[in-house]
Amino acid sequence: MAPRTGLWFIGARGSVATTATVGALAMTAGLAPRTGCVADLPEVAVAAPPGVDDLLIGGHDVVGDALPKRAEALAAGGVFGHELARAVHSGLVEVDARVRPGITSNAGFQRDAIEQVSRDVAGFRAAHGLDRVIVIDVSTTEPPLELAPEHRDLDELDRALAAGESPLPASGVYAYAALRAGCPFVAFTPSPGPRLPAIDQLAHRTQLPWAGTDGKTGETLIKSALAPMFATRALRVRSWASYNLLGGGDGQALADPETAESKTRSKNKGLASILGHPVDGPMHIDYLPDLGDWKTAWDLVSFEGFLGTKMSMQFTWQGCDSALAAPLVLDLARLMARAHRAGAVGAVESLGFFFKDPAGDTPHDLAGQWRALLDWCGQIGSGEQR
Amino acid sequence: MAPRTGLWFIGARGSVATTATVGALAMTAGLAPRTGCVADLPEVAVAAPPGVDDLLIGGHDVVGDALPKRAEALAAGGVFGHELARAVHSGLVEVDARVRPGITSNAGFQRDAIEQVSRDVAGFRAAHGLDRVIVIDVSTTEPPLELAPEHRDLDELDRALAAGESPLPASGVYAYAALRAGCPFVAFTPSPGPRLPAIDQLAHRTQLPWAGTDGKTGETLIKSALAPMFATRALRVRSWASYNLLGGGDGQALADPETAESKTRSKNKGLASILGHPVDGPMHIDYLPDLGDWKTAWDLVSFEGFLGTKMSMQFTWQGCDSALAAPLVLDLARLMARAHRAGAVGAVESLGFFFKDPAGDTPHDLAGQWRALLDWCGQIGSGEQR
Amino acid sequence: MAPRTGLWFIGARGSVATTATVGALAMTAGLAPRTGCVADLPEVAVAAPPGVDDLLIGGHDVVGDALPKRAEALAAGGVFGHELARAVHSGLVEVDARVRPGITSNAGFQRDAIEQVSRDVAGFRAAHGLDRVIVIDVSTTEPPLELAPEHRDLDELDRALAAGESPLPASGVYAYAALRAGCPFVAFTPSPGPRLPAIDQLAHRTQLPWAGTDGKTGETLIKSALAPMFATRALRVRSWASYNLLGGGDGQALADPETAESKTRSKNKGLASILGHPVDGPMHIDYLPDLGDWKTAWDLVSFEGFLGTKMSMQFTWQGCDSALAAPLVLDLARLMARAHRAGAVGAVESLGFFFKDPAGDTPHDLAGQWRALLDWCGQIGSGEQR
Amino acid sequence: MAPRTGLWFIGARGSVATTATVGALAMTAGLAPRTGCVADLPEVAVAAPPGVDDLLIGGHDVVGDALPKRAEALAAGGVFGHELARAVHSGLVEVDARVRPGITSNAGFQRDAIEQVSRDVAGFRAAHGLDRVIVIDVSTTEPPLELAPEHRDLDELDRALAAGESPLPASGVYAYAALRAGCPFVAFTPSPGPRLPAIDQLAHRTQLPWAGTDGKTGETLIKSALAPMFATRALRVRSWASYNLLGGGDGQALADPETAESKTRSKNKGLASILGHPVDGPMHIDYLPDLGDWKTAWDLVSFEGFLGTKMSMQFTWQGCDSALAAPLVLDLARLMARAHRAGAVGAVESLGFFFKDPAGDTPHDLAGQWRALLDWCGQIGSGEQR
Repeated sequence: MAPRTGLWFIGARGSVATTATVGALAMTAGLAPRTGCVADLPEVAVAAPPGVDDLLIGGHDVVGDALPKRAEALAAGGVFGHELARAVHSGLVEVDARVRPGITSNAGFQRDAIEQVSRDVAGFRAAHGLDRVIVIDVSTTEPPLELAPEHRDLDELDRALAAGESPLPASGVYAYAALRAGCPFVAFTPSPGPRLPAIDQLAHRTQLPWAGTDGKTGETLIKSALAPMFATRALRVRSWASYNLLGGGDGQALADPETAESKTRSKNKGLASILGHPVDGPMHIDYLPDLGDWKTAWDLVSFEGFLGTKMSMQFTWQGCDSALAAPLVLDLARLMARAHRAGAVGAVESLGFFFKDPAGDTPHDLAGQWRALLDWCGQIGSGEQR
Repeated sequence: MAPRTGLWFIGARGSVATTATVGALAMTAGLAPRTGCVADLPEVAVAAPPGVDDLLIGGHDVVGDALPKRAEALAAGGVFGHELARAVHSGLVEVDARVRPGITSNAGFQRDAIEQVSRDVAGFRAAHGLDRVIVIDVSTTEPPLELAPEHRDLDELDRALAAGESPLPASGVYAYAALRAGCPFVAFTPSPGPRLPAIDQLAHRTQLPWAGTDGKTGETLIKSALAPMFATRALRVRSWASYNLLGGGDGQALADPETAESKTRSKNKGLASILGHPVDGPMHIDYLPDLGDWKTAWDLVSFEGFLGTKMSMQFTWQGCDSALAAPLVLDLARLMARAHRAGAVGAVESLGFFFKDPAGDTPHDLAGQWRALLDWCGQIGSGEQR
Repeated sequence: MAPRTGLWFIGARGSVATTATVGALAMTAGLAPRTGCVADLPEVAVAAPPGVDDLLIGGHDVVGDALPKRAEALAAGGVFGHELARAVHSGLVEVDARVRPGITSNAGFQRDAIEQVSRDVAGFRAAHGLDRVIVIDVSTTEPPLELAPEHRDLDELDRALAAGESPLPASGVYAYAALRAGCPFVAFTPSPGPRLPAIDQLAHRTQLPWAGTDGKTGETLIKSALAPMFATRALRVRSWASYNLLGGGDGQALADPETAESKTRSKNKGLASILGHPVDGPMHIDYLPDLGDWKTAWDLVSFEGFLGTKMSMQFTWQGCDSALAAPLVLDLARLMARAHRAGAVGAVESLGFFFKDPAGDTPHDLAGQWRALLDWCGQIGSGEQR
Repeated sequence: MAPRTGLWFIGARGSVATTATVGALAMTAGLAPRTGCVADLPEVAVAAPPGVDDLLIGGHDVVGDALPKRAEALAAGGVFGHELARAVHSGLVEVDARVRPGITSNAGFQRDAIEQVSRDVAGFRAAHGLDRVIVIDVSTTEPPLELAPEHRDLDELDRALAAGESPLPASGVYAYAALRAGCPFVAFTPSPGPRLPAIDQLAHRTQLPWAGTDGKTGETLIKSALAPMFATRALRVRSWASYNLLGGGDGQALADPETAESKTRSKNKGLASILGHPVDGPMHIDYLPDLGDWKTAWDLVSFEGFLGTKMSMQFTWQGCDSALAAPLVLDLARLMARAHRAGAVGAVESLGFFFKDPAGDTPHDLAGQWRALLDWCGQIGSGEQR
């Protein structure tokens, strides 16, 4: 049976999208197990999301290397096996043929860019007779944004766009365009996109759901699992130092201190929320090309126990960023497709489990997020909730 | 107001009991904060357990060094400050005066030992007009026990005792005696005690609650917080290696391979339960006198992600065992007193949060145990449950 | 020009020999750099050892899988690239054709086994017109041996062999046979081989050199670099705990506690020698199949500084055992060929740099061993020393 | 017998000087062992330096807390025991009485400041009839300095000073004053001091020795022990990431990015020198007040072995900065006194063992530095060298 759900990547030839595409093709062909796929866990599957084999992939990108070549590079870096890359070669060629040129900063009127992107996405849906298309931003992280009136109010934004202004960051352009085309939007990077109040207003006006922001794949994931241990045992965390070494494209983007700030901000929010007080400690993200697609993080947690005794814990996390992110991206496409079918509107807070900086008033501890996700899956599965 | 709750330690002059006693005295005198005291967290306090200042401490021990001297030794080892030890000196002298000689293996008829212990505990309760006494076993870990018919059935046990036999391990003698004296019992070590079916039957016959076993203070605590992260993210844990270095008295006991087996068994149960499959990997407990009361544990977790990519995490935990255990012991005394007042009988499964090898059919993941604890606190606080 | 130096592996199809063979073929073909090759460092090259391209490889093994298949398995485990394995495929086939069946424990008279092995090695030398053949033992580690009179005295040994007895461990049989065939012998495992006094006597009688024992590739290498730091800074090492996780064939052999003892003994010797006093601390070698050809070691060093202040250092080493051992094996073949040409007899103590348990009265600190090696290279290069 | 050697601290009430003073008093009184004292190792003692009990301590400082109070604070932080601080209380009071007010940046004419410092030091020597006084800078690290003509040439410098200018950093003022007073100077911080060419010229003109710079106490010490292991094994270090967490006064100073640069520069030099090529990798120094006088450093070394296989090593160093630095400061006072007696002039390159950024053309590897030190000790002990 032909796929009915579209997955449209912003950054379709990046490491995360390429890995997700390779994985979707491989799993559909029965060549890879479902490891890492949260949506295939029985507790989540009760929501009855579309299967991985129901996804048809396309997207935008500004860079030239085609997916088969990108996949070969990732295989060389150990993200997956060469055989797997070769086995899905023809599928990658097909997906790559559906990648459209992304917008660039000097692209003229932003209103026109929105229209163009919107047309691309709608055209993809129509051409393949899809029920719906989920747009997921996995492109390079943008620097933090100072909110202007056009970001706060949809009418202000529309007025500015009509006046030929370009007030939006690229993530905002894509989010606007996706919603205009009737598509749910997922912000997998820390870029603002749908978190701009004006875009959120657009989601409500168009009755569409969005999810975000910043996929939780490594150190923050561990923090959200470990910090509750200190909190529920009444141990006082005195400091938490976090060092991140990244080699891939993301590392390079984050070597720009301004962009890094965007990331460290979203990494910091959860800890204080879980512990109930702010916690001292440096956080660095360093670019180390030597590491390739791999990441090494080292954290030192200093805490105080009974009668003021000082103790510590340290951990080292050695993970493959793209391999950690890719299954979550597929999960989000599937769960957002389900949410859309159920009529969800605005930020889908129950998907906080997947994000470093979850939208809305949701828990930051991983177990709490998991429970919230399961509750939502149960309700949506039984048709109770949108 | 005079304390109404007795806390009777089996092993009253050991590191854990001494630290707990110093802490209880210090907190009652306003000299130390409540760090590490779970029962003082607002979510738990809704159960309205007795306060730390409501505890009167006594106990059994077989060793000679008095509490003030033991406290000085622990202060020298950095477990707490010398000033604190000095500040509670007179209180320690008072508690030490309430320490009675423990039973030894060649103590004659086991029936007489039970009677003696029972009399000691009941005498303590009567002498101080206490509402109830909670007996907590923090003595040296026993080797694993092969279950005999006398351990499985209370009538068999009573018959054997009446016949002058000595079928029980020391932990069983103390548990039997406590229950005989009408006192709830807490097994804070891996020793069998109340987990012997015959003893559990006695608890039901005497309508008394017990809790256990093996306080969760370090590596297993972290495992129970971290393992769910892998499970809920559908990451496959391939192996989990655990190395423990202990310097204190517990380390020495566990250097005996037979006793160590008792500990490693109870450490192992949780992981497979959380992950849903057995996990390969060595576990060692090594005695390193150099470390004193401190413990260093190193764990290596090897796991598989999307498309089979192998990744790893490692952590080092540097904690003070006595300082980690002591507040839990006070928490358990207070919560068991509350459970007793509420009429709880048999294993109190909702206290699984505190144990490596929780009694009953309870969750092993820390967050699930925390939720179970809070549910119970809410119910008991509102009078709904015993 | 045809190679003039033979390299004969005992365990020719094992991981170390296979990796060394792949590497020698790849470097000869100009397909791989000299990373890891100590003999190609300028300071060592002054000794003018034969080049890698001067080596012709053969050997004994008891297992069946041919070298090309073994190489594919190692490439799958990440020891080297698949392309490299394919590129040297025909070379591997050629070497494999020179692998002769190894001796097995129930092989009949040991005297006959010695004769057979000796004939194999001599035949290899003659068939290819080689100047000399270096025999290197990289087979499975043997358990420690209780020395009997036949091990202590060559005449006793010869008498026993003549009487149809089998007093030697396999490593001794191979060492005896190599020397009988006029070939220098290198013990790269902890197995006794040439360290048996009787075999050493044979080396002197035959005027041949030998080197050993137990290649220093990981944790012990680091110890020998780090321990002098504590010694020369007058810092007192209180304890040094060592945990080793191995996945490969060596790990499996060492899972046998008796064999492990052989390894831990040779790992332990150096530390006390460098520090000037024995050091407390557990040492474990655990087999964790999940790790494949990789090894993870974690060490905790606890030390005391000025005024008794306690501090600590810990390290994690994540290395590929075969990739660490293989270049050393080639180095030893080349340097022993040079030593043989120079007329060296008995244990070549100046090669202690390569071994965990170096023969003779040589330094254990890495820098001291390096200096000794360079001195020897300088002398041998200038013709001063044999 | 009265002490004959003066030790004059710039920063006499700082953590390092206070710890060194407590230690010197305690060792002289027989209350502490010689742990950490390199000059008391037999190989170094052949140089016959003055004993610790031959040192009389004084110094400059700009801060007010007296030594007994500073010692109490350090004892509270675990640097040494409270009993030790109390045992040397009267000695500390005596030393504190010899602490003179240090110069401050707005101190008027720099020529006058030099004269004042010089008078203080010379007065100390005369008042106590000392043979010589060694001046050691352990004050706060200065930011890096752009060399001006006055720093490059002594005549230029003298002209500027005579003209009422203030071209020198504080470290230069102290070094100038010490040499003017006829005293050897040791730069234990990365501050320029005697490394300014003009000051070095003054040392030669006054025929006095100096040593420096930047005491090697932690991560760099380990690097200088470990990096040669990679170099001599022909393993290619691909990257070396270094993270330092410091809590003490030094950490606070280094939180200033400009000053930190001074430190990271001197930490970086050695690695490239040992490995023979520059090495990529971030280096951070972060201030974490929670750590107090303790330091935690984590390093990740990524390297390549045989056939390009990538491997890694990581270590965590948990040390007490003051306790690591203090004995080296005493060693340097004693060895510089010996060097002065032997007539050494200019930079004493053979003391490179003690420094992160050793003056002159000396080895950076720890073993090489140790050998150079021992050679020098042997020569100076036998009267061969100055």
